[in-house]
Amino acid sequence: MSLAKILVAQGGGPTAVINQSLVGVVLEARRQAGVSKVYGARHGVRGIVNEDFVDLTQETSHNLELVAGTPASALGSTRDKPDAAYCREIFTVLQAHGITHFFYIGGNDSSDTVRIVSEEAAAASYPLRCIHIPKTIDNDLVGNDHTPGYASAARFVAQAFAGANLDNAALPGVYVGVVMGRHAGFLTAAAALGKKFDDDGPHLIYLPERDFHLDEFLRDVKATHERYGRCVIAVSEGIHDASGAPMLAKLAGDLERDAHGNVQLSGTGALADLLCEEVKARLGIKRVRGDTFGYLQRSFLGCVSDVDQREAREVGEKAVQYAFHGSRDGSVAIQRVGYYSVDYALLPLADVAGKTRTMEDHFINEAGTDVTDAFRLYLRPLLGSGMPDAFRLRPNPVEKVLGRG
Amino acid sequence: MSLAKILVAQGGGPTAVINQSLVGVVLEARRQAGVSKVYGARHGVRGIVNEDFVDLTQETSHNLELVAGTPASALGSTRDKPDAAYCREIFTVLQAHGITHFFYIGGNDSSDTVRIVSEEAAAASYPLRCIHIPKTIDNDLVGNDHTPGYASAARFVAQAFAGANLDNAALPGVYVGVVMGRHAGFLTAAAALGKKFDDDGPHLIYLPERDFHLDEFLRDVKATHERYGRCVIAVSEGIHDASGAPMLAKLAGDLERDAHGNVQLSGTGALADLLCEEVKARLGIKRVRGDTFGYLQRSFLGCVSDVDQREAREVGEKAVQYAFHGSRDGSVAIQRVGYYSVDYALLPLADVAGKTRTMEDHFINEAGTDVTDAFRLYLRPLLGSGMPDAFRLRPNPVEKVLGRG
Repeated sequence: MSLAKILVAQGGGPTAVINQSLVGVVLEARRQAGVSKVYGARHGVRGIVNEDFVDLTQETSHNLELVAGTPASALGSTRDKPDAAYCREIFTVLQAHGITHFFYIGGNDSSDTVRIVSEEAAAASYPLRCIHIPKTIDNDLVGNDHTPGYASAARFVAQAFAGANLDNAALPGVYVGVVMGRHAGFLTAAAALGKKFDDDGPHLIYLPERDFHLDEFLRDVKATHERYGRCVIAVSEGIHDASGAPMLAKLAGDLERDAHGNVQLSGTGALADLLCEEVKARLGIKRVRGDTFGYLQRSFLGCVSDVDQREAREVGEKAVQYAFHGSRDGSVAIQRVGYYSVDYALLPLADVAGKTRTMEDHFINEAGTDVTDAFRLYLRPLLGSGMPDAFRLRPNPVEKVLGRG
Repeated sequence: MSLAKILVAQGGGPTAVINQSLVGVVLEARRQAGVSKVYGARHGVRGIVNEDFVDLTQETSHNLELVAGTPASALGSTRDKPDAAYCREIFTVLQAHGITHFFYIGGNDSSDTVRIVSEEAAAASYPLRCIHIPKTIDNDLVGNDHTPGYASAARFVAQAFAGANLDNAALPGVYVGVVMGRHAGFLTAAAALGKKFDDDGPHLIYLPERDFHLDEFLRDVKATHERYGRCVIAVSEGIHDASGAPMLAKLAGDLERDAHGNVQLSGTGALADLLCEEVKARLGIKRVRGDTFGYLQRSFLGCVSDVDQREAREVGEKAVQYAFHGSRDGSVAIQRVGYYSVDYALLPLADVAGKTRTMEDHFINEAGTDVTDAFRLYLRPLLGSGMPDAFRLRPNPVEKVLGRG
């Protein structure tokens, strides 16, 4: 029996639990018979073509467990999206090092990379087992009930809106919080889980699954402000008009585009500022504040769902088990069982790669400005244990003596 | 013995622990002999002139404890800064309701309100005991080692930068995080406590205690980026040039000003975006991202220092004890004892009111771009127990086979 050599890498945006998956792969791979080496590539596929490997066979289990509990990609990540020539470079390096099993932890772009690598390996008759391990805070991988990383980011968004709502109740006005998610509104929708009492915010939620109309937005904000004396709004960075043009693109003409041709939506506060200006100017409301949650929602140290941690660990373990005890390449997927547990499946790479899931219609209310109870029921168990709660004083009004104002 | 009637209110920006102080006042006041009523004013001094009171004598201890653990001002807050006429309105209401003790929880503006109310009450021979209870995430009250609310916000900032540093290490580039603090850099400086390893960010910290020079900033960012391949920067919203003009004011001419004549610095992502544009345009660095921490740093539900909670509770209790067992009005102050405990003092209102503490020189390094170990030692115990920690893989490089790139 020839010895197996494992290569694992992390791609795309970091999450709070992606290192759980990494450590799941490493520890499970080290338990397999006949595995001589477990390598990690630094900064994803870029580390492969650069032969930038670290030997994870020489890392202690103790430190691996500590790294598993640390957010962001411990091996480093990349936004590179390999083309055919890039993939040939990958093969050259994999062959030179005798790699037999390749695990890539990432989102839909990364799954597409695994698909290309898998297909090219087959075409070149190079014996390589390729497994994609799901990871994305956007929750936009098809075939998955949800994706590792989403739950912890969702928990951050829910806790952020729960706090922002209390702040806004103390100093009333309009508050706009802009949340990550280019095409899928799952993370923005998590804001709804920060709401406890009927009059709590977020009062309005705007998702990329629905067209955004500035006039309707202003009408809704005005009505909410008149009703409650304040208004808390969750907005996806990916909101767009009926033509599909991002609202942010209407603000600035000269936007940065990444290697995938996508406009840069994160890392700028422009969308929140634009919406606040519109509310101030057209509704005449004085106190209007906007926050862009930015990188905190995926990187904040110390906000994590224990359910997310467990599942992220398991998809890494399952990937190794599929690789060593199964017979084909694929993408590990999470499926929901009961309320609440999960099971795993290995989907064909072509079923997942490069596709984008968006929020299902039954998760969005008819007006398109809130989620449904079906969504609340879907998300609640993912947030994990120990969610902080908010309490308020009960009304015990004192009778006025002077009878003024 | 005539019965005492208590009035407590909350002013200024909410914090994670201001309700601990409120509940400290209420529970301690309800224990005093001869107290008939404990009222809370809704939305600070505005609630007083509007006679908008709630009867906290009719709230359960159980619910008060739950409210104490909830961030943001449970009574509501206000940005009103009363003048003499406003204070006369306050007296009219206090007299009508027979209030004997007034407790106001807030920052330096609120302490000045208490001072005016105290002086006017004395001038009018109206028997009123007035106690100011400290609260501000800015940590800018004179006479205090630190202020309740600061430690929890500092913990948020430290955890945020610890996570942002990991994210930036995974996907290298320049990251700018803008932190609250108009005149005092204490909260921005807390970013330094997110750093663990020598090459971790934040690599540069810019405080309002030092003049900001764009050319020096760009020079420092360039040098850091060349050294580490990345750069994480903490910037106070209050940075200003040598003339004292806010850097943000250089960006936009038409800025909102509040009732105190201050320019609105929070609730907009403009400063981070401006600095990112400068780095991109003048240093030619491609991946440059900016976050403005905004309201999350003071309101996020679930990020709190247990030390901060305890002290915020105690300043409320102490305020009542000073009021009932002391002989003068004043402002409760926190003083550090040993490493680490605290004691309390009642300072004359005029010593605290309307004054602003800024970071002491020995807390800032010579270059003005980092804190000193003295500051780290100062802040560390305030962050409380259970601070999350970050771990990394140890370097075990694999020898290159192809010997390229």
